[in-house]
Amino acid sequence: MSTRAAVGQGEWATAGRLRPAPECFLDGDGVLRVRQEARAGRRDFIRRAFAAALAGGGAVRAAASAGDPEILEPQPQRQALGRPVASTGYGSPSRYEANVQRRISPGLTATRESGVSFTPLQSLFGIVTPSGLHFERHHAGWWDLDPRRHRLMINGSDPSLVARPMVYTMDELMRLPSTSRFRFIECSANTGMEWGNVAVPTVQYTHGMLSCSEFTGVPLRLLLERAGTDWRRGRFVLAEGGEGSALARTIPMALVESGEVLVAYGQNGEMLRPENGYPLRLVVPGVQGVSWVKYLRRIEVGDQPYATRDEALQYIDLMPDGRYRQYTSVQECKSVLTTPSGGQVLLGEGYYELSGLAWSGRGRIRRVDVSVDGGRNWRAARLQPPVLAKCLTRFTLPWIWDGRPALLASRAVDETGSVQPGYRELRAVRGTRSLYHNNAVQAWLVQAGGEVVNVQLP
Amino acid sequence: MSTRAAVGQGEWATAGRLRPAPECFLDGDGVLRVRQEARAGRRDFIRRAFAAALAGGGAVRAAASAGDPEILEPQPQRQALGRPVASTGYGSPSRYEANVQRRISPGLTATRESGVSFTPLQSLFGIVTPSGLHFERHHAGWWDLDPRRHRLMINGSDPSLVARPMVYTMDELMRLPSTSRFRFIECSANTGMEWGNVAVPTVQYTHGMLSCSEFTGVPLRLLLERAGTDWRRGRFVLAEGGEGSALARTIPMALVESGEVLVAYGQNGEMLRPENGYPLRLVVPGVQGVSWVKYLRRIEVGDQPYATRDEALQYIDLMPDGRYRQYTSVQECKSVLTTPSGGQVLLGEGYYELSGLAWSGRGRIRRVDVSVDGGRNWRAARLQPPVLAKCLTRFTLPWIWDGRPALLASRAVDETGSVQPGYRELRAVRGTRSLYHNNAVQAWLVQAGGEVVNVQLP
Repeated sequence: MSTRAAVGQGEWATAGRLRPAPECFLDGDGVLRVRQEARAGRRDFIRRAFAAALAGGGAVRAAASAGDPEILEPQPQRQALGRPVASTGYGSPSRYEANVQRRISPGLTATRESGVSFTPLQSLFGIVTPSGLHFERHHAGWWDLDPRRHRLMINGSDPSLVARPMVYTMDELMRLPSTSRFRFIECSANTGMEWGNVAVPTVQYTHGMLSCSEFTGVPLRLLLERAGTDWRRGRFVLAEGGEGSALARTIPMALVESGEVLVAYGQNGEMLRPENGYPLRLVVPGVQGVSWVKYLRRIEVGDQPYATRDEALQYIDLMPDGRYRQYTSVQECKSVLTTPSGGQVLLGEGYYELSGLAWSGRGRIRRVDVSVDGGRNWRAARLQPPVLAKCLTRFTLPWIWDGRPALLASRAVDETGSVQPGYRELRAVRGTRSLYHNNAVQAWLVQAGGEVVNVQLP
Repeated sequence: MSTRAAVGQGEWATAGRLRPAPECFLDGDGVLRVRQEARAGRRDFIRRAFAAALAGGGAVRAAASAGDPEILEPQPQRQALGRPVASTGYGSPSRYEANVQRRISPGLTATRESGVSFTPLQSLFGIVTPSGLHFERHHAGWWDLDPRRHRLMINGSDPSLVARPMVYTMDELMRLPSTSRFRFIECSANTGMEWGNVAVPTVQYTHGMLSCSEFTGVPLRLLLERAGTDWRRGRFVLAEGGEGSALARTIPMALVESGEVLVAYGQNGEMLRPENGYPLRLVVPGVQGVSWVKYLRRIEVGDQPYATRDEALQYIDLMPDGRYRQYTSVQECKSVLTTPSGGQVLLGEGYYELSGLAWSGRGRIRRVDVSVDGGRNWRAARLQPPVLAKCLTRFTLPWIWDGRPALLASRAVDETGSVQPGYRELRAVRGTRSLYHNNAVQAWLVQAGGEVVNVQLP
């Protein structure tokens, strides 16, 4: 797979080439302005901008001068009937968007049943990830389980912790009080290949184990209340998945008590997708994806952490002194520019809208700063509402590229005051041989020719 | 198509049958409680509830007594590898959800190229409508247009209104400053068949010309600024679609000036779907769907309304005295219960969660009241955050069904104080022969056997 094939909006969008829009500019106060011909004194500038735009490939054209058959000639769709309603029952993206898809990184994992596919962040808008593009992480492949046969068991590690062990069918769970929330989910190994040095070319591969959906389900707290949990002694929960990897994770009871942890069946308005755990997965807001156990079949209340295989051998953080950190499950404050990003090409100087995503497992994003000079100067980006806790936040910033090399980077701050670290700060504590929880500032170098490449700030 | 086939979560969910969850109840203050065995004095009640639940089909079972092979026996998915990652590139819903789809109403329109498909509201959660289930309304069929060939023209009805007519390619538009917002879209003919009397059996058909997405695009205001619009004289905009129906709609400039109107290319994170206007549609928050012009090809600035075919012959409100209201484009405050709703069946008395959607073209929903006795008494529902302007709001309310006939209804109030009317109030002003802008209170009758049917309150 070439880098070019992995970027861009779709097959049609010339492989991620970004044309400038030179008529927008920043005024002295840093406010985005649109050039107005009516403004006295600006007319010459406007004429020059137009001339440059037309010469440079045409960011904006006047209809009269363009001679463009696509606007001047009648089109087939104006002269015939189109396709009928509901011809497919469940709709699909345009055939011109076939290039926007999840992608695997060959060689990253030994098999595709224990593998990863990455979300094409460079092609997405806003904060919602379409369910058909939600990243995948499987430990033993995915299943399309029959929900009539799926069960969820609630029990205690000893009988005194849960007074009434229960087994639910899906019908029973879906009649209980439910809640819906927009939440991000990020694999703790996201950006994990970049610990030592630049490893992969595009944001799909550096940050694409990240998605965001509106999840719907029953608060786990309610299920534990129904089962008669001993809240004083039962300080941990074991969540067990229903497929062959026997994945199981410890969840601190404090998270459950907050009411945020959901036994979820809904995602973006409909039932979960099979590759994301249909019919039932745990939603643990702010916590790494491995704890969002798919095909959820059992919740056990216990009085101590479980130290399962997936939290004793895997998903632990190697430190420089050779020791490991365990149970580091919160995804810390992080951000990344998605446009422009690695593999894209700027076509000429002028206006661009920088755009990216920020998130924190601790709560809301408070601000995002963006640098175009490798971190010497930072400017506050605009945060797009709604800004929700433990959810992606879209940020944008207008930028005029002068055609010279530029080092782009973003840095997020969350509502707890936690600041996204640079690589120098992160490595000072964590070293270079870890795999999980890399939330360092991501930089992209715009080269003089417009090519954007992955770099790391010193 | 049978009514049964049109309801329910999926093929697996026994055609919309709702099993009670009898262990939840309302206390004297109307707060939802979960029965706790530990509470002294409640134990007998709990035992009775359990006995009733087991006798009645088993809302909740104790694992030990269930003897359920689905939890006691090993399952195939625990003993083999599942499917590999990214095996489909772009994902699809489970095969067990094949029943959740858009549906057409035979005979409603003369052809399926000039037709409607309805969103299955009874099967959805939260506020986001999956793009594959977004309702369709076509006037001359839908197209999957090549975005490389699509153009948007900006001009004035006379040369003095727009100083610099422009033609944009998609690449050019997508480089401009963009914004993303969650918005509902509702066809003004939604619920239109119910003006005279009860006409259709399920909420998919009464209210399913309603969807909600995160839309992304360029504020139209910015495009008009770039074109040098005369804001003082140019008080209206004509939006023209690119397909064979030559659909065109007048938009008041005040809406454009607010910055809310978007020339949109994104929907729920990805590009618009073909049947919803790919690659470009207008987003006019709060305004009826027909003004959200698909395959958008031209915006003309004018100094008076255009009285196009689609606003002089169609999309006008017949009044009792034989006259018509024109340019009534805002979708007023409205709500509907989706669970339970017509065609579903309650299986026995006990706890249910009432759930529905509320929206207003005027702004945010302030409150939703729910009645279970045909409007004699109303209780405030819980509004699920985020509560956003001109967006769907999900509301829920716990309810214990006592097994006797119950008349369920919801009534929304928006932030302007506008209250959703009953049919009596609406008909006193609008009569019974209109087609558009029916925002009356919708009632569902739960019959003694549990069947839910569409009724109208007097």
